[in-house]
Amino acid sequence: KPLREVLFFPVPVTCIEPVLSPMKQCSCPLPHTDSAFSRLLVQLLGAQRSLELCVFTFSSPSLARALLILHRRDVRVRVITDNDYMAAPGSQIGPLRSAGVAVRHDQSSGYMHHKFAVVDGTVVLTGSLNWTVQAFQSNKENILITDDTVIVKAYQKEFERLWEEYDPA
Amino acid sequence: KPLREVLFFPVPVTCIEPVLSPMKQCSCPLPHTDSAFSRLLVQLLGAQRSLELCVFTFSSPSLARALLILHRRDVRVRVITDNDYMAAPGSQIGPLRSAGVAVRHDQSSGYMHHKFAVVDGTVVLTGSLNWTVQAFQSNKENILITDDTVIVKAYQKEFERLWEEYDPA
Ligand SMILES: [Zn+2]
Ligand SMILES: [Zn+2]
Repeated sequence: KPLREVLFFPVPVTCIEPVLSPMKQCSCPLPHTDSAFSRLLVQLLGAQRSLELCVFTFSSPSLARALLILHRRDVRVRVITDNDYMAAPGSQIGPLRSAGVAVRHDQSSGYMHHKFAVVDGTVVLTGSLNWTVQAFQSNKENILITDDTVIVKAYQKEFERLWEEYDPA
Repeated sequence: KPLREVLFFPVPVTCIEPVLSPMKQCSCPLPHTDSAFSRLLVQLLGAQRSLELCVFTFSSPSLARALLILHRRDVRVRVITDNDYMAAPGSQIGPLRSAGVAVRHDQSSGYMHHKFAVVDGTVVLTGSLNWTVQAFQSNKENILITDDTVIVKAYQKEFERLWEEYDPA
């Protein structure tokens, strides 16, 4: 049955420990309920082989944790981001690079403004939001999730094209 | 056969008169070829009954012209935008309102950051780009176009929800 789901934001803050550390019991005061944000994390953490991420700004610590979990599981994680914001205060790009995640960035005056991810070459998540806490908690935003082959192939191809274009070598 | 197409930007500047004024012959020096931008215009101008647009910033004169063409054809055009940018220099929101297009906006400190449109309640266009000249000509951006019923209904419902939420009355 085809996967097609749209997540809308903002959402109230909930605890995401059940998603990031399912083996532990969490007793923090936040609600331990599902939300569009936990749905997003579940989709990303489902990656078994590869995660390609193309995102303008990335400052969400929870999403960085999710990528590091995948990286430690030997999922191939590749990130493309915008050169104008990757060194901004709170950016997670530096910490991800230090942890060994492969990151490339544009070098142009125009923005690398995409906000999409491809999971295992079979699912695409694309939408309006950058990976910032403000986007998830304060803005009106959307993420479309689909496994439609035509759509997934188009985004995967665009990722590979940009990955080569931004090769620093 | 299902409609599913992904447009990628930036694209070189081409003449869009063949799309906006198909009855006239244009002899300007720009290339008169198809592009992702003309594909977007064609999809929007295909509206017969309604166009719902939810966009953070809107400064593209060509896209404003497309909306005015629909408005004059008695297509019901409704626009939701962000209060922080609608009065910015170059914004098309004022001119669209003056021409009689229905516009509502958020009143919150968070951004109304969506960038989607629903055509005739049957096709959704959603992506990373604001409706600015920079987005189409300089940035790396994407727009996904689909007529998948589940997806279209989700965006339509979100539009109607926000339209009520932003009712100034
Ligand atoms: Zn907790
Ligand atoms: Zn021309």
